[in-house]
Amino acid sequence: MRIAIIDPVARDTSHLSVPTVEGVSIERKSLRWGTPSIESRWDDDLAAPGVIDAAIRAELDGACAIVVNCMDDPGVDAAREVVRIPVVGPAHAAMQLALCLATRFAILTTAEADVPIVNELIARYQLEHRAARVRSLGLGVNELADDADATFAAAVEAAELAVADGAGALIAGCTLLGPHLTKLQRHLSAQGHDVPVIDPLLAALQLAKSLVKQQQAHSARAYVAPAAKPLTWFDAGAKLGAGELR
Amino acid sequence: MRIAIIDPVARDTSHLSVPTVEGVSIERKSLRWGTPSIESRWDDDLAAPGVIDAAIRAELDGACAIVVNCMDDPGVDAAREVVRIPVVGPAHAAMQLALCLATRFAILTTAEADVPIVNELIARYQLEHRAARVRSLGLGVNELADDADATFAAAVEAAELAVADGAGALIAGCTLLGPHLTKLQRHLSAQGHDVPVIDPLLAALQLAKSLVKQQQAHSARAYVAPAAKPLTWFDAGAKLGAGELR
Amino acid sequence: MRIAIIDPVARDTSHLSVPTVEGVSIERKSLRWGTPSIESRWDDDLAAPGVIDAAIRAELDGACAIVVNCMDDPGVDAAREVVRIPVVGPAHAAMQLALCLATRFAILTTAEADVPIVNELIARYQLEHRAARVRSLGLGVNELADDADATFAAAVEAAELAVADGAGALIAGCTLLGPHLTKLQRHLSAQGHDVPVIDPLLAALQLAKSLVKQQQAHSARAYVAPAAKPLTWFDAGAKLGAGELR
Amino acid sequence: MRIAIIDPVARDTSHLSVPTVEGVSIERKSLRWGTPSIESRWDDDLAAPGVIDAAIRAELDGACAIVVNCMDDPGVDAAREVVRIPVVGPAHAAMQLALCLATRFAILTTAEADVPIVNELIARYQLEHRAARVRSLGLGVNELADDADATFAAAVEAAELAVADGAGALIAGCTLLGPHLTKLQRHLSAQGHDVPVIDPLLAALQLAKSLVKQQQAHSARAYVAPAAKPLTWFDAGAKLGAGELR
Amino acid sequence: MRIAIIDPVARDTSHLSVPTVEGVSIERKSLRWGTPSIESRWDDDLAAPGVIDAAIRAELDGACAIVVNCMDDPGVDAAREVVRIPVVGPAHAAMQLALCLATRFAILTTAEADVPIVNELIARYQLEHRAARVRSLGLGVNELADDADATFAAAVEAAELAVADGAGALIAGCTLLGPHLTKLQRHLSAQGHDVPVIDPLLAALQLAKSLVKQQQAHSARAYVAPAAKPLTWFDAGAKLGAGELR
Amino acid sequence: MRIAIIDPVARDTSHLSVPTVEGVSIERKSLRWGTPSIESRWDDDLAAPGVIDAAIRAELDGACAIVVNCMDDPGVDAAREVVRIPVVGPAHAAMQLALCLATRFAILTTAEADVPIVNELIARYQLEHRAARVRSLGLGVNELADDADATFAAAVEAAELAVADGAGALIAGCTLLGPHLTKLQRHLSAQGHDVPVIDPLLAALQLAKSLVKQQQAHSARAYVAPAAKPLTWFDAGAKLGAGELR
Repeated sequence: MRIAIIDPVARDTSHLSVPTVEGVSIERKSLRWGTPSIESRWDDDLAAPGVIDAAIRAELDGACAIVVNCMDDPGVDAAREVVRIPVVGPAHAAMQLALCLATRFAILTTAEADVPIVNELIARYQLEHRAARVRSLGLGVNELADDADATFAAAVEAAELAVADGAGALIAGCTLLGPHLTKLQRHLSAQGHDVPVIDPLLAALQLAKSLVKQQQAHSARAYVAPAAKPLTWFDAGAKLGAGELR
Repeated sequence: MRIAIIDPVARDTSHLSVPTVEGVSIERKSLRWGTPSIESRWDDDLAAPGVIDAAIRAELDGACAIVVNCMDDPGVDAAREVVRIPVVGPAHAAMQLALCLATRFAILTTAEADVPIVNELIARYQLEHRAARVRSLGLGVNELADDADATFAAAVEAAELAVADGAGALIAGCTLLGPHLTKLQRHLSAQGHDVPVIDPLLAALQLAKSLVKQQQAHSARAYVAPAAKPLTWFDAGAKLGAGELR
Repeated sequence: MRIAIIDPVARDTSHLSVPTVEGVSIERKSLRWGTPSIESRWDDDLAAPGVIDAAIRAELDGACAIVVNCMDDPGVDAAREVVRIPVVGPAHAAMQLALCLATRFAILTTAEADVPIVNELIARYQLEHRAARVRSLGLGVNELADDADATFAAAVEAAELAVADGAGALIAGCTLLGPHLTKLQRHLSAQGHDVPVIDPLLAALQLAKSLVKQQQAHSARAYVAPAAKPLTWFDAGAKLGAGELR
Repeated sequence: MRIAIIDPVARDTSHLSVPTVEGVSIERKSLRWGTPSIESRWDDDLAAPGVIDAAIRAELDGACAIVVNCMDDPGVDAAREVVRIPVVGPAHAAMQLALCLATRFAILTTAEADVPIVNELIARYQLEHRAARVRSLGLGVNELADDADATFAAAVEAAELAVADGAGALIAGCTLLGPHLTKLQRHLSAQGHDVPVIDPLLAALQLAKSLVKQQQAHSARAYVAPAAKPLTWFDAGAKLGAGELR
Repeated sequence: MRIAIIDPVARDTSHLSVPTVEGVSIERKSLRWGTPSIESRWDDDLAAPGVIDAAIRAELDGACAIVVNCMDDPGVDAAREVVRIPVVGPAHAAMQLALCLATRFAILTTAEADVPIVNELIARYQLEHRAARVRSLGLGVNELADDADATFAAAVEAAELAVADGAGALIAGCTLLGPHLTKLQRHLSAQGHDVPVIDPLLAALQLAKSLVKQQQAHSARAYVAPAAKPLTWFDAGAKLGAGELR
Repeated sequence: MRIAIIDPVARDTSHLSVPTVEGVSIERKSLRWGTPSIESRWDDDLAAPGVIDAAIRAELDGACAIVVNCMDDPGVDAAREVVRIPVVGPAHAAMQLALCLATRFAILTTAEADVPIVNELIARYQLEHRAARVRSLGLGVNELADDADATFAAAVEAAELAVADGAGALIAGCTLLGPHLTKLQRHLSAQGHDVPVIDPLLAALQLAKSLVKQQQAHSARAYVAPAAKPLTWFDAGAKLGAGELR
């Protein structure tokens, strides 16, 4: 089974590692248009057209499902309107997984500025009642890679606050935190806090795989396919219609 | 990977078919104590001790995960306290799957008397906002097998009402409806209603498999293991404690 | 008027005192099957069949109403399906009483491990918006009796946190805290915190009495009586059906 | 035990019957200022000062509790600030009782114009999730007494709609419907709809009695007593302060 | 455009300044009956009849819209039933404005005793999910004018707590805080907290003006006009009916 | 005061009329990239970058506020991150206005396929409790202009359903319905349904004007400005950063 991971950034991402999933071959795509990182609603909106574009190409290339590799789930709902293969966002997948494991979860996000955006995300999936306070690491997304020790220390601190808030499961608020999560879960467990720490990208890949195995995709009634229409875009006169591309 | 399906009824269920899941071998267990079918909260409560008992034995036998095969999810939360392998309920799994596929779902339940119970179930998972009106087939759980044509006709009628209510995905309200679902989805699609119809048992098995693959189980903080204690049960003096059984 | 109190534990509880209610004679029952104390969902589920059994016997013995003496309200909903006399749970009764007295309440529970269970209970009655943070005494249910002074001190500390959280009424999270409540309310009042402290067992008894006086019982539409069916239980072939027992 | 019923209208109401409650002597009060019937938010607001006034006088006269006899609960919250005996509103009492008897209730109100007001009332007690659609009899409050047969027929029609909506318990939307309720419940039962029909005034009286028996009154923290202050009212210079009156 | 500001207190308020709004001439009214300040639900209920009375007179005098100058919005809903010009409450206007500016707001109220009332107000407009914790200045409404420096210092402290709670916009909890708000917003901005601080009276005036400009007023279906009826009030026999007054 | 209206479509819209607002001069902008009409989430996401781009240019050109002329509010939240002048969406403005006029509103949308999207919109602003069922005209956005009589007839039918559902105010679900609204409100009024019908574009313009008059804009804390960063877009190497453009 081939699953396309769309990195919603306009730069080469082929060097970034992703979790392996048995029986799944991963196809990596990044965007033709967009910004180099997702840190704001502005980045989300600039990424979404490229996500739609990449999703259409992934379906044409024969992918079985699509995962958009960002905790803001940019372009996921719109992409569902123009492809018939499953499209999964890691934020939604991770929150749903958390609710299989605990009665209340917390998201550990990166910069403090991201907190209102994460709250909007929780509201978008109507899960406010199940979410403990969003805790931030106080680090921008580009700072995560710079200093692994500082990142881990900040993650531990945020995680401990979240546990004190009553969270029973923790969600990494950025797919770039992936490499720290096993260590974080082990560290918390050693402190007597035996709580799952969820890698949203892995959660999304597993959910996508399971949708394919169940032969299910999003409802054509909830995500109605738009008619083809002229698009004004990169090169004038380009058409990017659903009808025409399938 | 071995997954134990616990049929929460006190009768032989080995003749009932279950969906096949690639890479998963199914182990079937029914209960030592309970009633022959689940149709009420009373059946749920009489089944739960047997579910706990079967769950402990399944974990001892080396199962990787447990699925409780009933849309009331009886005993699921309690079983999580005494085993460390994932325990999945089909109602929760199916509702979560539905929200991956549509913005609003409907449950098609069996008898009209079941409607308040299904509403409680939706409230238990705090998904009232995402649920369209529960629609019933007007058939008891034991009548489902009796007349396949009448069952299918009743399912079609309930499904069409649910679609008119605005549901974008449908959930079979009883795991016994499984054999009708592919046909139902195809029938609705032919009527122009292209909506997913979810088999809760398959949803639960896929979710259980994906939890095992992600090496995740329920939070020990949300589901705290009780200390072993004397149990007054079938034969006096029996102990059914978590501590002793592991 | 005779009200049956069902202590949902499988041990002799006749020595435990209960509040007196004018015009009500109390009949004490404990369980034929179950565990010696309720500290987890596991205990709840092991208690429920015994609660149902005791409820049926109480109605046959001519009781006017039933109170299940535990803040988890185990077996209450199921028992309503098989008896026609009112069945009251102290958690529900206490939360409803609290909302007659204040706009926001807090539950003071026993062990920290109980907090997620109490949150589930609040969600079951859909009262999250009216509940301040659950505060725990940090003592197991069996430790409450051991050291009255430590119990009282822990209750004061939890109560003061709850008042600072904005709670206008407090609910004892375990019916065993009853003996401390008058003193606790007086102590808080002396500190300038004039908030009601609710004894859930007393609240349940008063509610049960008032239902009898109003000649009201639970809706037969919300709690539909199941048909009699064979039960596999303590001695094989026993029937515990609603039809047969009435 | 003496309970004061405040009829929130400025006319003689001594001829109107009220339910009898064992061990309770009723004291009837109507208002010094207000309108002759409650049919709008405007009537509510014109009634409230008179309710406060009557409540203060009732407490001075030695009443043990107060019930405000109107389904809009006018002046109830404010009266709690100036008296220390329990003050109960029938709307709140009836909705709480309904939730002891069923998972979802419906209010049967009088005129269609009252529907938005009843919806606000349900929202004020934050019970939207538990309420089925408000159904009206299509009769003004003053028409109820005129034609008992037409009133009963309208109540039956509204009740049947509410049952079809899924309500498990029904609440009379006006305390003047009291005389029809036993007959209505019996009629519905004969139609196979075995649902409780709640008399809000009786529910309020029973709740008030039970609060007195539990020696509980509203929280002084949620309903803080205001300081005495000069009041410009009926005759200039009158003072109607809490401090001065106790 | 003439807008009537109703100060819901029974004293001369003509010396109190109000914000100026371009193209709007303000007409100041205070009450014929009521208390000298609004500090409790009791004051609210004693003010409401006077608000209704003043609203009817304002409409007769040719005002285009009405603003009730108090953060409890007393009498606003009832007044809408008897006048057809817009009636605006500052609490509602300010909360709605806040949600145009931020995803979460906090109300800074005066005395600690006001906190439960403000929570009720937020619930009345069903905005609990969008509100951060209510923070109080710890000062009574009459103390605000006494010591401007203490008031400002208390406002700063409450505002900083609200910002730490995650509020993105702040609402003055009393229209008397108006004079401090520009300074408060500037002070917070200098501390790096660039959050809007909303003057509820200004918000209400702007909303009222915009309703007039849009030629919109409240729905006659949501706020049904009551029929004229005899009123027992200040002088016996007075009629204060909607029909008669228009 | 100059307000920029951004029509979120990539075509000339200068011929389309907009409501006039006293003291406001309108500046019309359409998009450099996007589709010719907004009918799906896909259109929304393709429009958003162009909205951001147009918003930045409008602020540079000296506009006082921005209104995005589409009931899906595309790009509104993201645009707030990169401009400091108010940015208003008609959907949010119209829903807020509706709640000033009635207790419950209904949105009358165009095509049936739009219903799930409108439900998401209502959820995004967390107003599910205040919304009656979304009703559609059964006409695509491009069909609205084609046959004015059919459009009006469809609007009347949808409006009457919404009124029967209990809506007290109606919102046009597309800014293109503007020309029909006065007639619709008059028609409903003649039928005895005196409910406001809200023009979302007018509501947005009035809200924008009132924000400017109050000298308020969105919170810099809720909508944090992103740092400038390289953008891969129309012509390679283009930069569209917030910092650089101001």
